[in-house]
Amino acid sequence: MKAESDKLVRIGVLGASGYTGSENLPDMVAIKDADFSNVDAVFCCLPHGTTQEIIKALPKRLKIVDLSAVRLSSFYFTVLLFHYFCYRSCVSVHLCENRKLSEMVLQDFRLRSVDEYEEWYGQPHRAPDLQKEALYGLTEVLRDEIRNARLVANPGCYPTSIQIPLVPLIKANLIDLRNIIIDAKSGVSGAGRGAKEANLYTEIAEGIHSYGITKHRHVPEIEQGLSDCAHSKVTVSFTPHLMPMSRGMQSTIYVEMAPGTTTEDLYQELRSSYEDEEFVVLLDKGATPHTRNVRGSNYCFMNVFPDRIPGRAIIISVIDNLVKGASGQAIQNLNLMVGIPENTGLLYQPLFP
Amino acid sequence: MKAESDKLVRIGVLGASGYTGSENLPDMVAIKDADFSNVDAVFCCLPHGTTQEIIKALPKRLKIVDLSAVRLSSFYFTVLLFHYFCYRSCVSVHLCENRKLSEMVLQDFRLRSVDEYEEWYGQPHRAPDLQKEALYGLTEVLRDEIRNARLVANPGCYPTSIQIPLVPLIKANLIDLRNIIIDAKSGVSGAGRGAKEANLYTEIAEGIHSYGITKHRHVPEIEQGLSDCAHSKVTVSFTPHLMPMSRGMQSTIYVEMAPGTTTEDLYQELRSSYEDEEFVVLLDKGATPHTRNVRGSNYCFMNVFPDRIPGRAIIISVIDNLVKGASGQAIQNLNLMVGIPENTGLLYQPLFP
Amino acid sequence: MKAESDKLVRIGVLGASGYTGSENLPDMVAIKDADFSNVDAVFCCLPHGTTQEIIKALPKRLKIVDLSAVRLSSFYFTVLLFHYFCYRSCVSVHLCENRKLSEMVLQDFRLRSVDEYEEWYGQPHRAPDLQKEALYGLTEVLRDEIRNARLVANPGCYPTSIQIPLVPLIKANLIDLRNIIIDAKSGVSGAGRGAKEANLYTEIAEGIHSYGITKHRHVPEIEQGLSDCAHSKVTVSFTPHLMPMSRGMQSTIYVEMAPGTTTEDLYQELRSSYEDEEFVVLLDKGATPHTRNVRGSNYCFMNVFPDRIPGRAIIISVIDNLVKGASGQAIQNLNLMVGIPENTGLLYQPLFP
Amino acid sequence: MKAESDKLVRIGVLGASGYTGSENLPDMVAIKDADFSNVDAVFCCLPHGTTQEIIKALPKRLKIVDLSAVRLSSFYFTVLLFHYFCYRSCVSVHLCENRKLSEMVLQDFRLRSVDEYEEWYGQPHRAPDLQKEALYGLTEVLRDEIRNARLVANPGCYPTSIQIPLVPLIKANLIDLRNIIIDAKSGVSGAGRGAKEANLYTEIAEGIHSYGITKHRHVPEIEQGLSDCAHSKVTVSFTPHLMPMSRGMQSTIYVEMAPGTTTEDLYQELRSSYEDEEFVVLLDKGATPHTRNVRGSNYCFMNVFPDRIPGRAIIISVIDNLVKGASGQAIQNLNLMVGIPENTGLLYQPLFP
Repeated sequence: MKAESDKLVRIGVLGASGYTGSENLPDMVAIKDADFSNVDAVFCCLPHGTTQEIIKALPKRLKIVDLSAVRLSSFYFTVLLFHYFCYRSCVSVHLCENRKLSEMVLQDFRLRSVDEYEEWYGQPHRAPDLQKEALYGLTEVLRDEIRNARLVANPGCYPTSIQIPLVPLIKANLIDLRNIIIDAKSGVSGAGRGAKEANLYTEIAEGIHSYGITKHRHVPEIEQGLSDCAHSKVTVSFTPHLMPMSRGMQSTIYVEMAPGTTTEDLYQELRSSYEDEEFVVLLDKGATPHTRNVRGSNYCFMNVFPDRIPGRAIIISVIDNLVKGASGQAIQNLNLMVGIPENTGLLYQPLFP
Repeated sequence: MKAESDKLVRIGVLGASGYTGSENLPDMVAIKDADFSNVDAVFCCLPHGTTQEIIKALPKRLKIVDLSAVRLSSFYFTVLLFHYFCYRSCVSVHLCENRKLSEMVLQDFRLRSVDEYEEWYGQPHRAPDLQKEALYGLTEVLRDEIRNARLVANPGCYPTSIQIPLVPLIKANLIDLRNIIIDAKSGVSGAGRGAKEANLYTEIAEGIHSYGITKHRHVPEIEQGLSDCAHSKVTVSFTPHLMPMSRGMQSTIYVEMAPGTTTEDLYQELRSSYEDEEFVVLLDKGATPHTRNVRGSNYCFMNVFPDRIPGRAIIISVIDNLVKGASGQAIQNLNLMVGIPENTGLLYQPLFP
Repeated sequence: MKAESDKLVRIGVLGASGYTGSENLPDMVAIKDADFSNVDAVFCCLPHGTTQEIIKALPKRLKIVDLSAVRLSSFYFTVLLFHYFCYRSCVSVHLCENRKLSEMVLQDFRLRSVDEYEEWYGQPHRAPDLQKEALYGLTEVLRDEIRNARLVANPGCYPTSIQIPLVPLIKANLIDLRNIIIDAKSGVSGAGRGAKEANLYTEIAEGIHSYGITKHRHVPEIEQGLSDCAHSKVTVSFTPHLMPMSRGMQSTIYVEMAPGTTTEDLYQELRSSYEDEEFVVLLDKGATPHTRNVRGSNYCFMNVFPDRIPGRAIIISVIDNLVKGASGQAIQNLNLMVGIPENTGLLYQPLFP
Repeated sequence: MKAESDKLVRIGVLGASGYTGSENLPDMVAIKDADFSNVDAVFCCLPHGTTQEIIKALPKRLKIVDLSAVRLSSFYFTVLLFHYFCYRSCVSVHLCENRKLSEMVLQDFRLRSVDEYEEWYGQPHRAPDLQKEALYGLTEVLRDEIRNARLVANPGCYPTSIQIPLVPLIKANLIDLRNIIIDAKSGVSGAGRGAKEANLYTEIAEGIHSYGITKHRHVPEIEQGLSDCAHSKVTVSFTPHLMPMSRGMQSTIYVEMAPGTTTEDLYQELRSSYEDEEFVVLLDKGATPHTRNVRGSNYCFMNVFPDRIPGRAIIISVIDNLVKGASGQAIQNLNLMVGIPENTGLLYQPLFP
């Protein structure tokens, strides 16, 4: 792996003190003492409120990827970052925010509608102007726009796993929009590192359950993305399930196909959409995606299956919720924004077993 | 727990040598040496072929519960049996079949149609006459018939978890029959104790995947049961998923309600259907069933939730696949058949954590 | 299982409100409103301070088993209790203490020396008079004394798994007292249900580590028990390890044998000590104890192995830390104290898988 | 990470067909068709017998690292190799051996004494001449010798975790040689990918047990290494335990210190021995090594603790059994042998959670 560019990119991490592994990283400074003149881009992992004020105050020339809505999981960001710095000889300014990341719901920039934000998050949006500027960072779908964006809102894990397969199929009018049923399964790490009884080993091991039925905050983000490409309002059925595993996410998506459409049509559409993508892999026909085959990596594996009920199809996608579903995609976006190879720092292969 | 009856029931277990825990049980004899004159009823846990010949040869007065289709999981039957014998001062004749239970697909009596049997199992049915006599042992649904049956085919784990909530709703015409979508999740023990690479710890821990998509052999059993109560052919979407846990099963069922029906109607129908049942529990409104709350017990917990898509509902049921989904229901059926209290030997409470 | 006695024993549980599963149990009353005139015995699961005041105020004729030092794990007591009540037609008075069991270290009665108590627990003992009356409830070792005791301090899980094999060997002068090395492994449930980061699924799954090296609070309890039977001060090496499992405990004990002693001598001593015990099982020679074979049960399995180093032996014992290591032994003790069969409510067989 | 050398190293993998992930690798050829003229070094992952014949026939100028004793776990080698190839623009010749790696015990070169080999492996050594040439590849201990070796026997996982801390302490005469007690804990992957009942998920999850007590084949390898540096025969107590986790290994080592020696002396000796090592990390005083902090990486973390028994110490080391305990150390050795930076391909950071 030779660096394909000698361009030096200088990156800051706002909120680095939330990382357990921060001992790996360069020295931190307090945000107020930071000299942004030698920084090109920042990852923002700060809690709500703080985020708004600080982003407003940053020099306009800075590129920003916002992960603030990833509750506490920014913690898991460390390892990837470390490698990122290994790959690039970049200067890194780590801006220390002393407050420990709280359990409160964090402000973010994923929902374009500030009204919808208020409805789902139960609080007013505090930076509507910045919101207008924010671009939704689903890399494979909005790559060109991301290249030129200044502020990118990094997608959630469920929305990433769902939109990657559905967006091309909806754009090509291959599926009925009225009955998209998503049964999603996630590892526990998505819940962050907060000490809650519900996430204790004894509560999670050897058992499963659904949670947030119809009320999970990723719903409006999913519906926004699908509605955008459908050019009409899409309402989905979305039921997440908590799995006894640390990492990994599968979305099993049940759809009715458009009249005359076959699963072969779906397969071909996904193939042509993603055949040049490094991180999105349509498996061979009939092969079942396993979360263990993407663990620790930035890959999304997926496939399409015919259903027993005529006219229906089953779409399965798997990601590592902490990588492609969080930190990995954030790095992928920043790579685009600063003009270095998109896979920089992301060539970690799956860790199995 | 006092024995409510002093009636002595003498039970034999055909295939007891397949049990690891068989040291707990009384002495075994070879089937050919068995004196059936002092036996009232038998559990049949034999592999295919053997089953047919032996059942044909048994005295007609014997009551039979057949678990032969439960591939190898009869192994897990031991502990329950042990307790069963503790509760009842019964004489037990254990008939030893020396062959180790094979991995081959086992003959069973769950599918009434011998043609359907051949289609799904890929081999001819060898006992069509016995098949006519066999009753499907979904206890809560067919209790009165089971009381008088001579040969009961014990239901599969997935079909049990699915039919318990759906049968009353279909009988009451509350759900649309055309788009019943079942996303089911199972612990690994359903696969038995066979040494297969796919079931190794390193393959299962910390990952999930779908399997048998559209082709799982429980499909015809589910569709038979639902079609029976619908009085018309029902085709379901059924996708099982393998979980990193030993026991437990959840079926998440997505349905379209009949016009004018509400989730409250579904809830009330389930309430009235099961309010007098000891082992089927409709949770309080809004409470989510967890597999860990039924682990090691014969309970089925379930609930109904409104979906985001108007007119749809989500039904969730959980069981322990080895108890209510296998050995527990077998004992429940035999209790009925021999006229002792239905809960005999089944009062094990869930083991948590 | 027929009740072997028609004697009615009326049991109260102080601290029942700490149980999650308390919905299974009879109605609760506040302690101040309780009528102790119809109670024969109590389990005490209250937090420190409260415990002292309340026990002091109880009628002297009441039998007491104290589990207060079992931090929060009294929660897991529920299922066993439920069965206990099923087995016995007892009247139960549940005395509700509204305060949630705190995370603070709890007062208990296991250490006879109030000075040692203060050294290890960092606070003064508040009931030295009661302490003099308290008996250490290691059932198999002190059965006769327990029968006549009024106040029994229920042993810790590690001390139970260690003393059961070592006490007879030390009494028989078969092992050297100077170099007893104990490498113990415990499931996570021993830590109770408190929401601590260290016990999150993501921190525990797929990894192991030692903790409390040389400083674990079970050390003085172990040394007290061993010193008692050695009639001299015994100092042990004790290193606990946290395992990625909910239940189960193994103690691997490395000892130097007395001159001329063989592992066969150790084996025979353990055999003669425990051959009539229902819950302590010395396995066949060479057979390895597995925690999974005692899961959910009140059994202790153990065995002795020769070491490669001449003159040394390896002793392995396994228990379920929540049953024989906590609630199960508590019930066993109370059974003795109130004069009903010792195994009442304890015949749960191991749950495997 | 820039390649620090432009030297092209051409590597072959004998036995590559045993890898599941072999689709990642370049095209394979049969061994008989291989052109070794363009290969500098080989990893040998072949089963017994085959290994001997083939290694004998290889050109003498080839460097060899032998992993053949790593039963089947060579499978896990793939991911590391893939990265290795990413880092180095090497030409790779993969020599396909069609036979699937068998479950039989494999020949290896770790034990210098062919008699000892026969005693522990129950079969004659088939290449005593090659054995004389083989060097034991414990990298940090024998780095200079490895640089000049032609045939390196890659150490086992347990011996690696044990010798790294003990070798310097024994060389410095800091510990008593007569009572070294090693309680080791391993993840399941060490057992390879063979389909055995004992390694099924349902057998492993939620339980622990000891295995191979006094008889594990790593014993002679450990004793050989310790005896070498002690210049006298060392006999150890070694008890491995199987953990419900895929990867990871901890050795908890109980030692008696030499007269007048303190744990501070042990700590300082380890510090001076390893302070310049990249992959061996002595933690800060009092910090406990956790297997999860080395998962997926080539690190060995360790520390020393005082025991309660005066004059004794507890040494804890953790590694990833598949990396530092197998494939990682193999790559580290080959790097040395071919003269490229020792950490090439090994900078994977731990994957947590």
